[in-house]
Amino acid sequence: MNIIPKLKSLLSLLMLALIGTSSINAQNSDNKMEKPIEVAFIMFDDYETLDVFGPAEIFGRLVDKYALKFYSLEGGVVTNRHKVPIMTEKFETMGNGPKIILVPGGMGTRKEVNNTQLLNKLEKLSQTSDYVLSVCTGSALLAKSGLLKGKKATSNKRAFSWVVSQDTKVDWDKKARWKVDGKYYTSSGVSAGMDMALGFLADRHGIDFARKVAKEIEYNWIEDKDNDNFVAE
Amino acid sequence: MNIIPKLKSLLSLLMLALIGTSSINAQNSDNKMEKPIEVAFIMFDDYETLDVFGPAEIFGRLVDKYALKFYSLEGGVVTNRHKVPIMTEKFETMGNGPKIILVPGGMGTRKEVNNTQLLNKLEKLSQTSDYVLSVCTGSALLAKSGLLKGKKATSNKRAFSWVVSQDTKVDWDKKARWKVDGKYYTSSGVSAGMDMALGFLADRHGIDFARKVAKEIEYNWIEDKDNDNFVAE
Repeated sequence: MNIIPKLKSLLSLLMLALIGTSSINAQNSDNKMEKPIEVAFIMFDDYETLDVFGPAEIFGRLVDKYALKFYSLEGGVVTNRHKVPIMTEKFETMGNGPKIILVPGGMGTRKEVNNTQLLNKLEKLSQTSDYVLSVCTGSALLAKSGLLKGKKATSNKRAFSWVVSQDTKVDWDKKARWKVDGKYYTSSGVSAGMDMALGFLADRHGIDFARKVAKEIEYNWIEDKDNDNFVAE
Repeated sequence: MNIIPKLKSLLSLLMLALIGTSSINAQNSDNKMEKPIEVAFIMFDDYETLDVFGPAEIFGRLVDKYALKFYSLEGGVVTNRHKVPIMTEKFETMGNGPKIILVPGGMGTRKEVNNTQLLNKLEKLSQTSDYVLSVCTGSALLAKSGLLKGKKATSNKRAFSWVVSQDTKVDWDKKARWKVDGKYYTSSGVSAGMDMALGFLADRHGIDFARKVAKEIEYNWIEDKDNDNFVAE
């Protein structure tokens, strides 16, 4: 009978210890949030310039929250038909911290949908990342990797049927400016990537925060993600 | 008296020859227009990402008309606080063909207004170029080089007094989204560079052409260059 109060106090101590641990975890998690999260741009030949550097402006200026990195299969300079040469690192150099993957579109996606090495890399990375964002025909690469199966997604309206053909089991939305399904964000053409990036900020940090960023870069943010005014007639 | 008809026919022949020449010149000039004109981006440490890559998307996609090149004093990789590493060439490698200079802004301009080597280079290049465009605080570099003296110009409204202090003899316009004075185009902050680039296209190739480009990149072009809706209250 004397054992019960002792057990109770032992349990209380255990409870306190657990609460303490959970409070420390919460603190760690807060600290983790405050540490910049890596935004990993998946680069390939003939990417679309603004698909990359629109979101790069938006995430890049938030140096306390996000840290940009550019990756490619071979590393080194990756360029496009616009002749914009960006320096990249090999995927192997990527760390294991919290990560957002960003997949641009561009004419290069027509070739890359057949690049098994890139698609495999994309699939593995996406599954271990906190968020996966694509701009324009970047969603064709996600679709071809099977990552969007059964998910709601969108893409550039002018290449829509080609993108849809990469995986018809995706719930493709032709009207959206950008689409959110769990950790997957997919956007319509080129400039829509900036609207999506701001939408992502709104979802994580509140609408006022996102509006402030748009104002800082003097950008007329299209806030309505459901109705793209560039839908082909 | 017989001489007059002969003179007349001689004059007619001369007229025809002149018309012929002028038609050939027009043709040459057309051919010249069809050869891509170099758009030379002046890069320096801590440039603003979208100041560069917004216009780069717009000019870059017109591969028949414009050819992008990125230059810096030292050549090699130039980066910024957003961590966007772009590969550049040394100014010495620049050819002598028709040229458009594009000067971005960014926090780096605060240092570069004291970089005599860069300012001298900018002054020489601008004087021999067909057009000189600046985005955001890029106009501070043009002003400090003395290139805007007596000219109408604008800049980022949030850094306006600092930019004005670089040369008070410039006719600074605080209301404009972008400003045109002869071959000089200066724009307001960050995204305004895209509006100016489209405005430049409109001036050279017509408004319908510029609107088509804006539509292709699904960008809501702010066409009114005189009234920037981001003017600070």
